[in-house]
Amino acid sequence: MFQIDYIEIIGLIAATCTTAAFLPQVYKTWKTKDVAGLSLPMVLMLFIGVALWLLYGFLMKSISIIIANSITIISIFLLVYFKIKHHKK
Amino acid sequence: MFQIDYIEIIGLIAATCTTAAFLPQVYKTWKTKDVAGLSLPMVLMLFIGVALWLLYGFLMKSISIIIANSITIISIFLLVYFKIKHHKK
Repeated sequence: MFQIDYIEIIGLIAATCTTAAFLPQVYKTWKTKDVAGLSLPMVLMLFIGVALWLLYGFLMKSISIIIANSITIISIFLLVYFKIKHHKK
Repeated sequence: MFQIDYIEIIGLIAATCTTAAFLPQVYKTWKTKDVAGLSLPMVLMLFIGVALWLLYGFLMKSISIIIANSITIISIFLLVYFKIKHHKK
């Protein structure tokens, strides 16, 4: 179903760079519990966007897009979890 | 060169959502001039990642990936500009 050629290798390196740049933000939020800057409509829009990128990745048979957005969607779930948990306190 | 089918329409909606979710962050940084949370290695990695996504978009002939990452790379240039300008003060 999926083929790894030189284009996918470029995509995988791209996915690694952008995901690696995003993860420290998630880690920082986890450490500081500071979710004041996260607005729920913004997070929701990001979630819909990333879910659509995932769908796009499957339709385009692009393993790079699928991997990058799978990791991002897990990160968004974590951010939403932090936000709800912090809000209840 | 590029064709707009239902897959590209899904990609374009995805690009709109994720870009729209990202832009308030750039605007906030522009307003507050608070770039303390931006580390240069992180921004550099993001820049390389987005540049590779752009290359990937051209190789995959994906107008969605090209548009999304063009806007993101302009945002990164703005963030780097804020960082350098703020640093000099």
